[in-house]
Amino acid sequence: MLRLSRFLPSTSRKVSDLKDVLWSGSVTFEHALSTSAANVDENASARKFASYTVFKGKAALSISPILPNFTKIESGGSRVKKNGSVMLTFFPAVGQRQYDYSKKQLFALSPTEVGSLISLGSAESCEFFHDPSMKSSHEGQVKKSLSITPLGNDNGYFVNITVLNNVQKTNERLSVPVTKAEFAVMRTALSYALPHIMGWDQALTSHPQSPTAPASKPRVERPHPDSEWER
Amino acid sequence: MLRLSRFLPSTSRKVSDLKDVLWSGSVTFEHALSTSAANVDENASARKFASYTVFKGKAALSISPILPNFTKIESGGSRVKKNGSVMLTFFPAVGQRQYDYSKKQLFALSPTEVGSLISLGSAESCEFFHDPSMKSSHEGQVKKSLSITPLGNDNGYFVNITVLNNVQKTNERLSVPVTKAEFAVMRTALSYALPHIMGWDQALTSHPQSPTAPASKPRVERPHPDSEWER
Amino acid sequence: MLRLSRFLPSTSRKVSDLKDVLWSGSVTFEHALSTSAANVDENASARKFASYTVFKGKAALSISPILPNFTKIESGGSRVKKNGSVMLTFFPAVGQRQYDYSKKQLFALSPTEVGSLISLGSAESCEFFHDPSMKSSHEGQVKKSLSITPLGNDNGYFVNITVLNNVQKTNERLSVPVTKAEFAVMRTALSYALPHIMGWDQALTSHPQSPTAPASKPRVERPHPDSEWER
Amino acid sequence: MLRLSRFLPSTSRKVSDLKDVLWSGSVTFEHALSTSAANVDENASARKFASYTVFKGKAALSISPILPNFTKIESGGSRVKKNGSVMLTFFPAVGQRQYDYSKKQLFALSPTEVGSLISLGSAESCEFFHDPSMKSSHEGQVKKSLSITPLGNDNGYFVNITVLNNVQKTNERLSVPVTKAEFAVMRTALSYALPHIMGWDQALTSHPQSPTAPASKPRVERPHPDSEWER
Repeated sequence: MLRLSRFLPSTSRKVSDLKDVLWSGSVTFEHALSTSAANVDENASARKFASYTVFKGKAALSISPILPNFTKIESGGSRVKKNGSVMLTFFPAVGQRQYDYSKKQLFALSPTEVGSLISLGSAESCEFFHDPSMKSSHEGQVKKSLSITPLGNDNGYFVNITVLNNVQKTNERLSVPVTKAEFAVMRTALSYALPHIMGWDQALTSHPQSPTAPASKPRVERPHPDSEWER
Repeated sequence: MLRLSRFLPSTSRKVSDLKDVLWSGSVTFEHALSTSAANVDENASARKFASYTVFKGKAALSISPILPNFTKIESGGSRVKKNGSVMLTFFPAVGQRQYDYSKKQLFALSPTEVGSLISLGSAESCEFFHDPSMKSSHEGQVKKSLSITPLGNDNGYFVNITVLNNVQKTNERLSVPVTKAEFAVMRTALSYALPHIMGWDQALTSHPQSPTAPASKPRVERPHPDSEWER
Repeated sequence: MLRLSRFLPSTSRKVSDLKDVLWSGSVTFEHALSTSAANVDENASARKFASYTVFKGKAALSISPILPNFTKIESGGSRVKKNGSVMLTFFPAVGQRQYDYSKKQLFALSPTEVGSLISLGSAESCEFFHDPSMKSSHEGQVKKSLSITPLGNDNGYFVNITVLNNVQKTNERLSVPVTKAEFAVMRTALSYALPHIMGWDQALTSHPQSPTAPASKPRVERPHPDSEWER
Repeated sequence: MLRLSRFLPSTSRKVSDLKDVLWSGSVTFEHALSTSAANVDENASARKFASYTVFKGKAALSISPILPNFTKIESGGSRVKKNGSVMLTFFPAVGQRQYDYSKKQLFALSPTEVGSLISLGSAESCEFFHDPSMKSSHEGQVKKSLSITPLGNDNGYFVNITVLNNVQKTNERLSVPVTKAEFAVMRTALSYALPHIMGWDQALTSHPQSPTAPASKPRVERPHPDSEWER
């Protein structure tokens, strides 16, 4: 029988500390912002941030969704320019219920990596490899891997990040055991997030006729949208 | 073959009674409101409340979602300050189809407890412990536990709450059998609610450019949002 | 191997016919409207109707979601007064691809009945009984039952409605075979609809501060919303 | 153990190329637009497009949701006139990581075909047949089929399109292997899209009382909406 307890001293103060770090400082989980005038961020005040964090003995793991980017297209609408992602942030523990937020390690899951994670069988593993310097002259200097391995007996998973730095000759590894219940939260949150980080929720939002839009602009005929026949 | 019947005399009057109790009186299922001027509740008139209730012989069980709390952050947006929850409310029966709403017992499920419940196998159990006086001088005086145990043969679950009061020397226990169909409603509603009580729906809502916002406020460069490379 | 074909002569004209019937005439799938001035229907023009229909040899079956009803509460918000439902509408065939819409039979699934349907195993059955005259002097005169029974070999289900009229001494029965793919559509649509017909989507919608609301109305302190401790 | 890698040279430039093709040119994935003045497209600037694409050795496959069409009904609301769909677009490879977008093949999945795909067991297959000239004098000249067959060992599926042109005596075939992780993305995206392409999200959206609507227009009595009793 699974037992969860809340009799433990609260970690709420720690969570606040964490969140202050997550949403400020050097990493901001926001829309991609360029310095170009075209991408002026007018809606910073409307942005909301949310995460799900598990605190364990040797490290904490926080997951957080990131929105996709859209770009204007000629026809007047917009299309996804860059998919969003789900960011995994690991923090090492430096004492009982104390975590060093300056030593965080990041790993951004792509839609397909999210798909891998949410379809993981209870006895299955998966591993992803990222190279932060991909496509630059520094390619291969730093290698990150994220692996998810079963705890056994359908009890959850170990989520491990390894960051190998060939220049600094360092090899950092953080590991967080995730219970079946916690993984169910992650799976549900990731399944919910997946269509959103690909922009499908926005593509599937109907836009009712705007009463202020000029109604006197008839369009020329276009091919029927969902017809596959027209080639 | 499962059979559900509606030939029974209606319980609709009772449901109304219950709802009057649920949404008024000493417990209000609303946003956390402080008395600070900053948190003035301007939107009370827009708030909507919903629940799912099962009425059984010895007790009734009602589940109801509660929104998370957001707090402003320096950068101009906001982040989850306190997760929402799913409130379970138990009412003892005091006669045929009559329940004593003054003797209700509450149990608020955290996101991880919701995760535990929605991933529960048909033959599995789970149990959660809460201490209402946690972190106060009264810690340990009252202990609550919620257990969910299978009825057997994939027929649903017993949902039991026990409230042990060491000061008043009382030990109240309410138990509600939940059919497979009713549990499917709960599981579906909880799965739907989970991303919302963690604020992920709000974090994943894009905010289109507001036409009234001042467009002439270019921002300084910020790190690319979803890049994990920038440490 | 499952094979679906679109080479058959189109049924699109028939579908239009059906929809004209579904959304007009004696049955309107709309919000509950009383004649009281308080419930004036100001938003008829914004309402949208959708269904999913399967046309088979002896009958057609259409399913369609119906919104819940809210009622104002003292505190200024509103709560679900009456759950929505998912309406099943059966039409008997009167010729090849022709259906008699005047002989439709209706069956409104409650949230728990929806839960029963979406959790149905591939070899399981379920049956629901409704009495249209429940709680009136005509109780027992008409009895409806809806049964869902497996086609066998994980191939889908038979969905059957029986309407027994003890006064008119009639016993009508319509039966529609639903393929595994069609049932997957129904299951997905019903799972999506379930939180909505219970009003959970509206209860979980956050209402951002309205700029036009009077901000100078500080509230008195209220109990913390999601605390279960306060009894 | 499943391994995904990002060390490969990026395909981002190719993706951009693809998207330019997807959202412009001869095929526009938009609302159905007639040339009639009534259907003037006033909201082109608000439209957003999203897809999910997998690039493989011999071909690429992109899936993309298409909204349903609504039409006004007499009572003042609107109903689904034509279901949306999920468009599958195949592109043949013409070199390493190079695809010929001019040779794309399209296949639009109906709601029931989406249901078939999302309920596909890991060892199951399905096949759909479309005739682009259905109901015209050219019926039977071109036959398309889409088949989805398991790769084996729960490793994903082959997605194959065949276009047989009896006039041009051509038979084109494109085949894309889809990993389990990629299929999980498709399944999740399709499950999310399904209620939307049928318009259920719009039918289940409540429309709060508009403050600007004339409140002095009481309606005549109508039958109770979700009552099945009223025949």
